[in-house]
Amino acid sequence: MTRAIQFSLQEVADRVGGRISGDPQYRVGGLATLQTAGPGQLSFFANSRYLAQLKSSRAGAVLLTEACRESASGHAIIVDDPYLAFARASELFDWRAAVCPGIHTSAVIAADAEVDPAAEVGPHAVVGAGSRIAAGASIGPQAVIGARCEIGADSRIEAGAVLYDDVRIGERCIVHSGAVLGADGFGFAPEAGRWRKICQLGGVLIGDDVEIGAGTTVDRGALDDTRIDDGVKLDNQIQVAHNVEIGRDTAIAGCTAIAGSTKIGERCTIAGLSGITGHLTIAAGTHVTAMSLVSKSITRPGAYSSGTGLQPHQSWKRNVVRFRQLDELARRVTKLEQLIEQNSTEGHKE
Amino acid sequence: MTRAIQFSLQEVADRVGGRISGDPQYRVGGLATLQTAGPGQLSFFANSRYLAQLKSSRAGAVLLTEACRESASGHAIIVDDPYLAFARASELFDWRAAVCPGIHTSAVIAADAEVDPAAEVGPHAVVGAGSRIAAGASIGPQAVIGARCEIGADSRIEAGAVLYDDVRIGERCIVHSGAVLGADGFGFAPEAGRWRKICQLGGVLIGDDVEIGAGTTVDRGALDDTRIDDGVKLDNQIQVAHNVEIGRDTAIAGCTAIAGSTKIGERCTIAGLSGITGHLTIAAGTHVTAMSLVSKSITRPGAYSSGTGLQPHQSWKRNVVRFRQLDELARRVTKLEQLIEQNSTEGHKE
Amino acid sequence: MTRAIQFSLQEVADRVGGRISGDPQYRVGGLATLQTAGPGQLSFFANSRYLAQLKSSRAGAVLLTEACRESASGHAIIVDDPYLAFARASELFDWRAAVCPGIHTSAVIAADAEVDPAAEVGPHAVVGAGSRIAAGASIGPQAVIGARCEIGADSRIEAGAVLYDDVRIGERCIVHSGAVLGADGFGFAPEAGRWRKICQLGGVLIGDDVEIGAGTTVDRGALDDTRIDDGVKLDNQIQVAHNVEIGRDTAIAGCTAIAGSTKIGERCTIAGLSGITGHLTIAAGTHVTAMSLVSKSITRPGAYSSGTGLQPHQSWKRNVVRFRQLDELARRVTKLEQLIEQNSTEGHKE
Repeated sequence: MTRAIQFSLQEVADRVGGRISGDPQYRVGGLATLQTAGPGQLSFFANSRYLAQLKSSRAGAVLLTEACRESASGHAIIVDDPYLAFARASELFDWRAAVCPGIHTSAVIAADAEVDPAAEVGPHAVVGAGSRIAAGASIGPQAVIGARCEIGADSRIEAGAVLYDDVRIGERCIVHSGAVLGADGFGFAPEAGRWRKICQLGGVLIGDDVEIGAGTTVDRGALDDTRIDDGVKLDNQIQVAHNVEIGRDTAIAGCTAIAGSTKIGERCTIAGLSGITGHLTIAAGTHVTAMSLVSKSITRPGAYSSGTGLQPHQSWKRNVVRFRQLDELARRVTKLEQLIEQNSTEGHKE
Repeated sequence: MTRAIQFSLQEVADRVGGRISGDPQYRVGGLATLQTAGPGQLSFFANSRYLAQLKSSRAGAVLLTEACRESASGHAIIVDDPYLAFARASELFDWRAAVCPGIHTSAVIAADAEVDPAAEVGPHAVVGAGSRIAAGASIGPQAVIGARCEIGADSRIEAGAVLYDDVRIGERCIVHSGAVLGADGFGFAPEAGRWRKICQLGGVLIGDDVEIGAGTTVDRGALDDTRIDDGVKLDNQIQVAHNVEIGRDTAIAGCTAIAGSTKIGERCTIAGLSGITGHLTIAAGTHVTAMSLVSKSITRPGAYSSGTGLQPHQSWKRNVVRFRQLDELARRVTKLEQLIEQNSTEGHKE
Repeated sequence: MTRAIQFSLQEVADRVGGRISGDPQYRVGGLATLQTAGPGQLSFFANSRYLAQLKSSRAGAVLLTEACRESASGHAIIVDDPYLAFARASELFDWRAAVCPGIHTSAVIAADAEVDPAAEVGPHAVVGAGSRIAAGASIGPQAVIGARCEIGADSRIEAGAVLYDDVRIGERCIVHSGAVLGADGFGFAPEAGRWRKICQLGGVLIGDDVEIGAGTTVDRGALDDTRIDDGVKLDNQIQVAHNVEIGRDTAIAGCTAIAGSTKIGERCTIAGLSGITGHLTIAAGTHVTAMSLVSKSITRPGAYSSGTGLQPHQSWKRNVVRFRQLDELARRVTKLEQLIEQNSTEGHKE
């Protein structure tokens, strides 16, 4: 990938809020790790484990803290938080094309939809009746926006994402390709041994600064809306069932599934492939480790886990057999304790 | 969301098969939960846990059983099964636009495909050679229907869903956005340390009244068809591998994965994020709880589970260490039992 | 499905590299299992468990080894590896239409994109600026190819698959529908209690002969590329996070999630619904069983597992309670051992 953009250290320092140690006019043309960066590239040192890499790095310039300045030989930009500075600097080198206002001739826009003149609608995109696309928003190629949707300012719906009717998205959001928002929640009533569909009458309400990963699905509510609050970050292939509520700034990693009506508090972090069953309440600030099953509400913030950990298959097989007998094993231990206690008492009696 | 539809209680009662207690001409304009419903809205009382909510509800009218009539202050419709009545009433307030027959000018239809005049094909949809779309069926925007497919009467393929060639779908089905039916099964033969693809020659055969969730994938069979029988409900992001068979009225929750050639019986319920390995047979009426791994056939219906349950991370870590030594622990207990037995026998001998 | 192709046994034998036992001019019109095959169909016998099926099969001809010739009554093609021969024979009966060079009039191709005249671009497909599509490649209906992408010769991007910018794919690959390659990796820096996006500046680099399943997502790298090497086979709905590297000929089954920067060696097999946490290294030749969580690097090849195995729900519940107390149980056993040891020593002392 060659994207020929260059910035002076001064420009970078202004962007990240740092102080230059070196030549302010030195120019960098990309970001790279300490190991791969060469002259003319900017790197960052945010984890003391990589000190050896910092010392041997060929990077033209490095973002680091004052305390580590001496360990780097080249130019440096001194910052309080090098990882955050790296995030800010990454924006300088972003590959995304700027929003290019206008509607592609192949797009199909309902007569009463409102697309702001400063919004972009890509090839073959579809925008349904009564929907509103705000200024600076971008609807990618072949994205489908249903009826009565709202896309807030500067939000970006990537290629092929699908919004059913009645999905409202705030400002500065990103919805990645393959995401589906507003499909029917999974609701059926039993009727003579079969399932009768419960029409899902709610919508989806998404706040500002939310990112929704590729292939993630957020179902519409059964009656009320499914709600994702400001600043939530959802990774790829997450399933959010009907009427779930996710509190602000919570981050959830890939392939996690959240069942219906569960409420997740603010600033939680849920690791990948986790499952959260329905109708639970998860306290703000909860951390769930990878591939855990949460089947009860969590009232106290903290870290939670489930699972057995990985083992070589042969020893795992033996242990699993024992797990199946674990209740019995525990009873045997209790019995032994009683016997020993009894023996010892009898011993004393003698 | 404002969708200005109103119904008299008489109309609702006729729909759900209930008896009015109150004013038959009272009009309701929407469905809501007991907590959120106001005057002019219909609610339902199907779970005795919410009795307090019923008593304090401001709902204009409530669907409930005769036995609970006294607990509600407003209008009521008396039914045998309030949850089923709620499902039926939900249809009155559905947001889905009726099928609007005709083919959008931007759709691409193969010359020899047959689209019934009473079917709808949306913008940018593609219908392949030899496929047939029956009356009342709806092909959403940008849905792709491959060659030799059949879509039965009144079935709905939502925006952007993809059907490969040779996928046959019955009547009154819903296939949600992001679903992919008929992609290649995962079949390869080892050949000199590499993988040689086995072309997947079967198709996909789906019965009537089936719902397939957003992002769910159903692979085509290797030789015979992958088969989903009448009334099956699949939630979002489920993976159904080649030659799986799912019996009628089975319901499977989100993110479950079913490996190749497994046969699931009728009326099973499989909770979310479960895994079912290949070549198994699951008895009709089996229930699997969330995030369980089924790795052997189930011959007796009943509820099955796996996993460890959730714990605070620190205690979980200690227990997991012990799980790795569980077989050894069990042996130690057996040895203790022998020692005690021996001691006790020796004691008696003395 | 009727696809009227027929081959003589001679043609099949030439294709699979076998020797005919029977009439070389006998014609077969399809492949089927031993159970379902009839006259005029070809089957294969690759697993001795199905010997009874071989003996009773009505298949017109069977692929088998010399040693088993006597067990089949009809025509046969003698091969060293019947399963591999089946794979090769499957190609004869493949349903896929041959690539039909040309660009559909509804496709939108950037002015500076290069599409080889021997490539096919389907209805409503989009090809972005600076991308190159090689000879024999096929871009399915509504597939979206971003900017600066490369699709190698004879690779097939199925309907509706999405490639973001900067995705390079080798030769003879298949990317199935619903797959999303090059979406943003999940990277954020904490900033005053909120999350600041780290722009994902790397791309995706995919080798030759790779197959990527329906709904699988492969994120772009944060700085360097996410890399999938030659011959890798990914099933459906797999999540590959940013900067993951997957070594050649590794096969991964459906719904597995691999977190950021993990390196998986060559010729591994990872069963479905497994999770692999970030920044790990997995040795070449490792096998992971279904639904396992790999949370540490694996340095020695072999088979690895986690989980508890399935049980009836009631006994599982009792065992899970004990699992939560497992560390305590182990301590109790240790204490018992000490008591017994002590008693026995005291006994000897007496």
